[in-house]
Amino acid sequence: MAAQLLALYGAPADPTAFEQHYHGTHIPLAKRLPGLRSYSVSKGPISAGDGKPPYFLVAVLEFDSMEAIGAAVASPEGQAAVADVPNFATGGATIVTYETERV
Amino acid sequence: MAAQLLALYGAPADPTAFEQHYHGTHIPLAKRLPGLRSYSVSKGPISAGDGKPPYFLVAVLEFDSMEAIGAAVASPEGQAAVADVPNFATGGATIVTYETERV
Repeated sequence: MAAQLLALYGAPADPTAFEQHYHGTHIPLAKRLPGLRSYSVSKGPISAGDGKPPYFLVAVLEFDSMEAIGAAVASPEGQAAVADVPNFATGGATIVTYETERV
Repeated sequence: MAAQLLALYGAPADPTAFEQHYHGTHIPLAKRLPGLRSYSVSKGPISAGDGKPPYFLVAVLEFDSMEAIGAAVASPEGQAAVADVPNFATGGATIVTYETERV
């Protein structure tokens, strides 16, 4: 068993500024989260089959458990990462967490 | 470099029927996708902080590349999995694919 934090970002007002801030500032902040086991980020355009992609960037952060995610978000490093989101997520951010099982 | 297929399911009309079909039928179908490297499924409720969770179930399927995802979806196994989605996804399904990098 493990748990994931999934961050789904809508299309920003300025895609170049978003990418620069996300890669230059937000990833370094989020990588400091205690208990983070892996962190993958979408690269390039998101494909949604025939339709318009509902998101501009997708990040999947893995932890050992929901308790570990709660502790990570509550930590000073987590609070710094959360506080940074409004600095770049001009198209909105949907952040959800859940236990996962590998099937 | 790798690529992910992210499946986001909205709240179904009958959660119990959804769970039974997803675990009993859809996972076995999707696990047959050629080139599938890993497959994780949310277990239990999805948390969205203070708000209402926008999704009922989240699945992350990993492949080696976008080309591998395209080949998997086009295969007979992929077509069977795609054709099964309307059988249980009464709350809608958002399916996106993208290249990923581990950061």
